[in-house]
Amino acid sequence: MGAEWIWYPGEFETQAANRVQARRFEREIPQPPIWQTFGVTPCVKFARAFTLKAPERLKIRASGIFNVELDRPGQFVPVPDGELELSAGPHSLSITVFCGEGKFPALWAEGKTLFTDGEWHCTLQDGRFVRADCGGFSDPEGDPNDWKLPVRRREPDAFEEIEGGRLYDFGKESFGFLCFENARGGGVRLFYGESREEALDFACCEQTDLLTFDRPFVRTPIAKAFRWVAAVGSGGGKYEGFYADMEENPQPFRADFHSDDELLDRIFQVAMDTFGLNTREFFLDGIKRDRWIWSGDATQSYLINKYSFFDLQTERRTMVALCGKGPLTRHFNTITDYTLFWLVSFYDHYRWTGDRAFLERWAPRFGEVLDFCLNRRDENGFLISPQGEWVFIDWSPALTKDSEVYAFLQILLFGALRSAAGVYALLDRTAEASRFEEEAAALAGQIRKVFWSEEKGGFAHSLLEGSSDGRIFRQTNVMAVLTGLADERERESILRKVLLDPGIPAVTTPYMRFYEFSALCELGETAKVMREMKAYFKGMLDLGATSFWEYFDPGEQGSEHFAMYGRKYGKSLCHAWGAAPVWLLGRYFLGLLPEDEGYDRFRLCPSPELPEHFSCRFPLKGTEIRIRREGESLCVFAGRSGTAVIGGRTAEIPAGEEVRLLWKNGDPGPDN
Amino acid sequence: MGAEWIWYPGEFETQAANRVQARRFEREIPQPPIWQTFGVTPCVKFARAFTLKAPERLKIRASGIFNVELDRPGQFVPVPDGELELSAGPHSLSITVFCGEGKFPALWAEGKTLFTDGEWHCTLQDGRFVRADCGGFSDPEGDPNDWKLPVRRREPDAFEEIEGGRLYDFGKESFGFLCFENARGGGVRLFYGESREEALDFACCEQTDLLTFDRPFVRTPIAKAFRWVAAVGSGGGKYEGFYADMEENPQPFRADFHSDDELLDRIFQVAMDTFGLNTREFFLDGIKRDRWIWSGDATQSYLINKYSFFDLQTERRTMVALCGKGPLTRHFNTITDYTLFWLVSFYDHYRWTGDRAFLERWAPRFGEVLDFCLNRRDENGFLISPQGEWVFIDWSPALTKDSEVYAFLQILLFGALRSAAGVYALLDRTAEASRFEEEAAALAGQIRKVFWSEEKGGFAHSLLEGSSDGRIFRQTNVMAVLTGLADERERESILRKVLLDPGIPAVTTPYMRFYEFSALCELGETAKVMREMKAYFKGMLDLGATSFWEYFDPGEQGSEHFAMYGRKYGKSLCHAWGAAPVWLLGRYFLGLLPEDEGYDRFRLCPSPELPEHFSCRFPLKGTEIRIRREGESLCVFAGRSGTAVIGGRTAEIPAGEEVRLLWKNGDPGPDN
Repeated sequence: MGAEWIWYPGEFETQAANRVQARRFEREIPQPPIWQTFGVTPCVKFARAFTLKAPERLKIRASGIFNVELDRPGQFVPVPDGELELSAGPHSLSITVFCGEGKFPALWAEGKTLFTDGEWHCTLQDGRFVRADCGGFSDPEGDPNDWKLPVRRREPDAFEEIEGGRLYDFGKESFGFLCFENARGGGVRLFYGESREEALDFACCEQTDLLTFDRPFVRTPIAKAFRWVAAVGSGGGKYEGFYADMEENPQPFRADFHSDDELLDRIFQVAMDTFGLNTREFFLDGIKRDRWIWSGDATQSYLINKYSFFDLQTERRTMVALCGKGPLTRHFNTITDYTLFWLVSFYDHYRWTGDRAFLERWAPRFGEVLDFCLNRRDENGFLISPQGEWVFIDWSPALTKDSEVYAFLQILLFGALRSAAGVYALLDRTAEASRFEEEAAALAGQIRKVFWSEEKGGFAHSLLEGSSDGRIFRQTNVMAVLTGLADERERESILRKVLLDPGIPAVTTPYMRFYEFSALCELGETAKVMREMKAYFKGMLDLGATSFWEYFDPGEQGSEHFAMYGRKYGKSLCHAWGAAPVWLLGRYFLGLLPEDEGYDRFRLCPSPELPEHFSCRFPLKGTEIRIRREGESLCVFAGRSGTAVIGGRTAEIPAGEEVRLLWKNGDPGPDN
Repeated sequence: MGAEWIWYPGEFETQAANRVQARRFEREIPQPPIWQTFGVTPCVKFARAFTLKAPERLKIRASGIFNVELDRPGQFVPVPDGELELSAGPHSLSITVFCGEGKFPALWAEGKTLFTDGEWHCTLQDGRFVRADCGGFSDPEGDPNDWKLPVRRREPDAFEEIEGGRLYDFGKESFGFLCFENARGGGVRLFYGESREEALDFACCEQTDLLTFDRPFVRTPIAKAFRWVAAVGSGGGKYEGFYADMEENPQPFRADFHSDDELLDRIFQVAMDTFGLNTREFFLDGIKRDRWIWSGDATQSYLINKYSFFDLQTERRTMVALCGKGPLTRHFNTITDYTLFWLVSFYDHYRWTGDRAFLERWAPRFGEVLDFCLNRRDENGFLISPQGEWVFIDWSPALTKDSEVYAFLQILLFGALRSAAGVYALLDRTAEASRFEEEAAALAGQIRKVFWSEEKGGFAHSLLEGSSDGRIFRQTNVMAVLTGLADERERESILRKVLLDPGIPAVTTPYMRFYEFSALCELGETAKVMREMKAYFKGMLDLGATSFWEYFDPGEQGSEHFAMYGRKYGKSLCHAWGAAPVWLLGRYFLGLLPEDEGYDRFRLCPSPELPEHFSCRFPLKGTEIRIRREGESLCVFAGRSGTAVIGGRTAEIPAGEEVRLLWKNGDPGPDN
């Protein structure tokens, strides 16, 4: 272990979120986030007590001006050239860093045995010390304020001449800066397209840039999403070289899937590409639009992430950026459901990572967020949504929003309370754990009493004038299955009378289909899900998609596919939730998931819908699993131990040993 | 009225306070504030609804990127070159400004009839709109983020050669940047001195700079306090021109005093200079040190200000910077008394200004600050100071700090509750006004019951093991007089048995003498105060002071006067509270004060200690008063009407008319 830059928890994420989310433009119009943003705090004091066996010299770097107090408050010592001599023996050291101009205070210090790491504490000088945070920044000259993703040069695959310029094709959905070499004269106007049509529609394409060739090498100021780019000279601008600096999250893909089912392979690969492009500083919703951190979208990304990158840094950054600072006055992203999803995900994060440090660090904020919700309950214990507050649930004209109480939100609140019970149990705060377990049970009873319709076999949508409206939607019932609210009998009824009933309005958004597919799998309908998933995503591939879309309606024709929000190219053609197949394949078809809270062991329950021949690789916590099927033979090799369940038979998979299992045709599906 | 830059309330002050307070250095060691600092919020939405009689073009400038929504949310309109065409008729306009890199969002917009001003509203996107703030910035190219005080060039009065360089003398206490022209070679080392001794003591002077002559014109990066500067060449550095850019608050002095008492004139002038130097972006404590915004010091500055600059912008800025943002976790400046002084001053500000807009804008924060204090009371209703919290009261070895409950703080809390009653009465929140009036009365009763000693004739110091310690100090009793807690009988007793009793430990700090002198004047001891004030401040003048000091002990000798905090030159020789004579002369000797809440009328009650011949000028709210005494004739001319009380006789002074009054020798003193 060496020195890492440290900072006050949340400051790094606050600043990165501000920078990232301000990069959304619709043509020349900036679109900063529509929810509250926060500034970074200019002054932080870092502290550490320690004992040295021998004298050592500490090299100190900071993101701003700093002073050093040694052994007692107010005893300031000069640190010429950022070096401090320390004598042997016990010491206490405080380093106060002040940054002007929007930087957050960060500190790096390294001696022979003493160095900055997560063992340091820090304070905003608000009377409270907390553990400092860090994130893998070890270069003393690499101030984490300057963090940006790396770029990789790529030439366009092809170009064609168009009036006044060229249309470049990069061959697939991309994200990056455009670079012009030997540029001179006036400049260039750029029209970006996720589709060819968009790049050629100068009046209506969503993203444009006007570059002035005021120096020989000119690069666009903001990385943007595109496959095609039309570059049209402006004021006599000329250039000789053109390429893109593709901006990429440096995390490697940690999953692949190859089989005798080419379509499934292609769906998996494009889903991975889609998720990779949206895995940036944070889990974004889409790379063309909104380029924001939406909690609802991120919740699905946390799940997809466990079967693709297992990128816990981006996951933690995203969760931290979402929870903001200071007193809560509105829901996350201004959407009620999105606060609740975050609360549910908070415990889930531990379940998949065993990351106790993160849990402890952010538990106070979790408590504040939960309190914000709990303080908004009515006398039935239902979370109310006053008029004017945004209740999302799903895009669907059928889903009325004329109530103050929605079953969907109460079910998520139940999930949040269960999450709280889990969190406090892990923190050994047993009284709170019991309290939230009881609150969850009471709320479940209340939801059942008010919303369950025995006749219709599902949970109804909302309260109207104090009573259930009796309207049954898939969304509500899917969530009742996934949060564990529905009991066996209710699950059975929901499957039969809601999910398999074509008379119930279909889910049309990929966002909610993510959950609907998941619930169907939970209820044993993997065959149906495999069939529908393949058909749905094949539809986009057939239209030439190199990434999966925000929304896809097979009934639309031609350029109808590109339109959304009343704009010709408003639709994002690379949207994180389009990567659902990665989740479905890993979580449900392979049946891979943590066997315990913290993922020390895995559980693998492959389903019969998988191809006869496949080989794949998926991440486990800190390692990976490799699975190969050749007909009736299934080979499993994993970096940590777990259990495989095939055809109702259970086998131990020891860490680091290849295990060969028999998998007969006709074996029953997973039991989980 | 034209367009002004507008911003979210508090953001301007937050940023300015961060910048100003990070400029304290002790030699090369930075000394950022020891209390919590806050970042500016990067995104603010500004909004205005209006109706235009005719179309007009709005010119828009912002401190960051911005977008414009016209007439309905989400209807973004392009604003090429920052110009927006508006049609006749009703409109609603939202402009969202996002700033990166530590700027706060500010907006300037100007059309023919529509322009940015305090009528606009704004939100942090936290679900709440508040009125936008502004502060006199009307230049569209003058982003208020770039605000700095103007400078004025001044040459040194004299210099003398010293080894390796020169010692420059600017003739009097100053504050500014040092400038070197035609600089070349290596550089220069600067040693600043408020005293000649300090500038020549290279090893121990408090402020130094090392400049590198990397270009022909070099200026020090931070304005500093000095009268003398030693400039010593470093690495062969040479220069031809040398001067200072003196940084000044551009507010004009609005008071002067000339009389046949030269000493009094000189004291008044030096006090004005002292206060002028400390009146910068904010009311600072001292210009050499700490250069910070201390609430205790600022409280006296608010009072002095009413008799010198009547600079309400700096006063408001200071009050706003002090109250911070977000949930309070510690007292202002980490000092319990300092929060209470702010609460008392909040109502006082209205009393002297009638500034209802400020009152309304900051009343919510006032409420939060008050609640923070009220939530820290024990079962007696006393504000407790847990061990580890800083209770200042006064520097005095006699004042023990071994309790959790100090009478001084309870008396200030009484003042704060009275302030609250006044604030809520002005806001027509009568229930709260009554509640706080009652709470104040109850607390007064409790203080009296627990701390008043009939035998010793004063209020005791603290609680020890639940009972009064019976120790009588001036500080406690001075505050009982000034807050109005002490009744007639108690005031009488406090005067006789505490303030006039040499056996009670003397007040030695100018900070507390400010209040002691005030209380003595309130109790009719103007003659004693005039005598002691003149003697005390003459002591500093006799030592060559051109500004008044943080602390002065006539018993000290030579360079002992410069030492403090264990450092040879630790003492500030230009400290705002040294300007007490301005306050005493205006408030007590001239007896000038608001006759009503809001200062629509003044009251003037000159005391017999004033010289036989004098002429003076003092600010009134929005105007001024001029007074001239020639023996028994007193001429008064004021820009607003008021009452003069001389020798028990009352005279009406109409606005804008010179009134001549008879003032016989032997007339009794003021009746207020």
